[in-house]
Amino acid sequence: MPELRKDPIIGRWVIISTERSRRPSAFQSVSRPLEAAQCPFCPGNEAATPPEVRAYRAPNSEPNGPGWTLRVISNKYPALMIEGTLNRAPDGIYDRMNGVGAHEVIIETPVHDQDMAEMSVAQIRDVLWVYRERMTDLQRDTRFEYILIFKNHGEAAGASLEHSHSQLIATPIVPKRVHEELQGARRYYEFRERCIYCDIIRQELVQKERLVSDHDAFLVMEPFASRFPFETWILPKTHQGHFLNMSDADYDTLARCMKDTLMRLKLALNNPPYNYILHTRPCSSEYRGQYHWHIEIIPKLTKVAGFEWGTGFYINPTPPEEAAAFLRSIDVDSMPSEGKREPV
Amino acid sequence: MPELRKDPIIGRWVIISTERSRRPSAFQSVSRPLEAAQCPFCPGNEAATPPEVRAYRAPNSEPNGPGWTLRVISNKYPALMIEGTLNRAPDGIYDRMNGVGAHEVIIETPVHDQDMAEMSVAQIRDVLWVYRERMTDLQRDTRFEYILIFKNHGEAAGASLEHSHSQLIATPIVPKRVHEELQGARRYYEFRERCIYCDIIRQELVQKERLVSDHDAFLVMEPFASRFPFETWILPKTHQGHFLNMSDADYDTLARCMKDTLMRLKLALNNPPYNYILHTRPCSSEYRGQYHWHIEIIPKLTKVAGFEWGTGFYINPTPPEEAAAFLRSIDVDSMPSEGKREPV
Repeated sequence: MPELRKDPIIGRWVIISTERSRRPSAFQSVSRPLEAAQCPFCPGNEAATPPEVRAYRAPNSEPNGPGWTLRVISNKYPALMIEGTLNRAPDGIYDRMNGVGAHEVIIETPVHDQDMAEMSVAQIRDVLWVYRERMTDLQRDTRFEYILIFKNHGEAAGASLEHSHSQLIATPIVPKRVHEELQGARRYYEFRERCIYCDIIRQELVQKERLVSDHDAFLVMEPFASRFPFETWILPKTHQGHFLNMSDADYDTLARCMKDTLMRLKLALNNPPYNYILHTRPCSSEYRGQYHWHIEIIPKLTKVAGFEWGTGFYINPTPPEEAAAFLRSIDVDSMPSEGKREPV
Repeated sequence: MPELRKDPIIGRWVIISTERSRRPSAFQSVSRPLEAAQCPFCPGNEAATPPEVRAYRAPNSEPNGPGWTLRVISNKYPALMIEGTLNRAPDGIYDRMNGVGAHEVIIETPVHDQDMAEMSVAQIRDVLWVYRERMTDLQRDTRFEYILIFKNHGEAAGASLEHSHSQLIATPIVPKRVHEELQGARRYYEFRERCIYCDIIRQELVQKERLVSDHDAFLVMEPFASRFPFETWILPKTHQGHFLNMSDADYDTLARCMKDTLMRLKLALNNPPYNYILHTRPCSSEYRGQYHWHIEIIPKLTKVAGFEWGTGFYINPTPPEEAAAFLRSIDVDSMPSEGKREPV
């Protein structure tokens, strides 16, 4: 059973993951990309994964066999385990908690080497739709305070399997980073009686220099205090606290917007490793109205080093205004907009 | 001039570093290790660096020429610039500040491929001693609120030059991470009227399972809520708020302790990339008594991915108790204790 441990000084929780336990010698091995035939996320290899929690599949196909276009499974090496009741206990000055939670993997495509920028808008919409389904389902479990959805693309961004997938982790506590954003948004609201993200959008639409693209209901921009070169945010233009507040009609628009943005980054930076993270408010309704959901995309181009670890500050060698200008200049329309292309 | 920008939501500052400005194409290049002949940190190449701020050198040698054993220079590509007065300005909802600060490099050895674990105790003591000298000097500058000392070892840990060096950055604001630790330590002090680090040391000395080694005035341990496999802390056993509170006699002990610890990590993990960071209290005396300085060493064995960026939590696959047991089992005494050896 994994264990959650709390840093007694700054209150940060850490998951000590026994399921993924690695001996010192394991850190010296080098990972090799898997061929499709050995890939547990490829059609025909369904038996190599835990049973599916949800799948979008052909009407006559059987669960846990081929015929799917999208598949959600429990993580084989979960950071947190779904069974058990929450149990917090002190250990002298320290706090620990058993690692109850959910850890699911969303296999986004049956095609082994198709990345999200290459997927069709309909495929990306299905991914967003299944995020909604899984969040809605897991929110009913009162043990979970937060549901995080994220994607690691490329080995340098932490992806252990190449086959395109995202992950969902439901946690029994509101994560520190989310708590900080909620606090900041609330402080601003108390002071100005407006949503801080809405005010940021208003200012960016006037200043324009950090905008990447505008997709009706969604805005793509480089944030003013970007931590990383080409850090990119996608925000709904109207106030929506939770990802689940998005209207059905907007799923198509967001899918188009994500495809366009990921393709711009791919072309601008030669298929960079990246993480994207869905930032939304916690499950509990007490946070209603104090947040504005958005997606943060962070290409992995620089290394986080001693300065960043020591300060919590970041050194970013590319002004967001330059990154935005460069991303605007990419000619996405000349690219085949649907279907698979060879990796660059 | 670099610019400091504040994230309006969570208040984190970012340095937009124009001196290090990188065009998108620059992120695609691969760095190659330099030979000693081309290395700007090697004796004979002093002209390739800014003039030295301080050096330990042979009595008859000239500044900025060979004959030194340790050399401190300004960073050629500084994240912050020493000239100018502080100037904060709003930009609508945003805050910016000109990037005033100091950024120095401590070249720890004249030998190109000698890492710190291989240095003599006397050499490491000199490095610690020059940290003290530079901190004492820069603390007089009232523009600076904090002085951070850190080391990046290995390319994966962010070292851009292989030749062993550490860095010092003086910042015009107390960094977010330092502020969090100070707040946590103060909260605990207000509640229990004791230093939290002193209480941690007391508990670790009783529980023993996370101890690595004991060096009279210093304790080496794996923290209870380790973020990373083999994260290792070195703490003075008695209460000392600031690194500068250390007695002269303890410099030798700390140098021995650091050599022993870095050698254990090197042997256990096959010369891993790592960062170490000196955590000490800010310059201002208002923080007196609320902190306990220490050194945090973080080997770079795992990748920080979407989960960590999204939550501020960490997933650590190696329990600190296992890491401590493994580090204790390393036979450091059988190794040549002084002088250079070939890299493992």
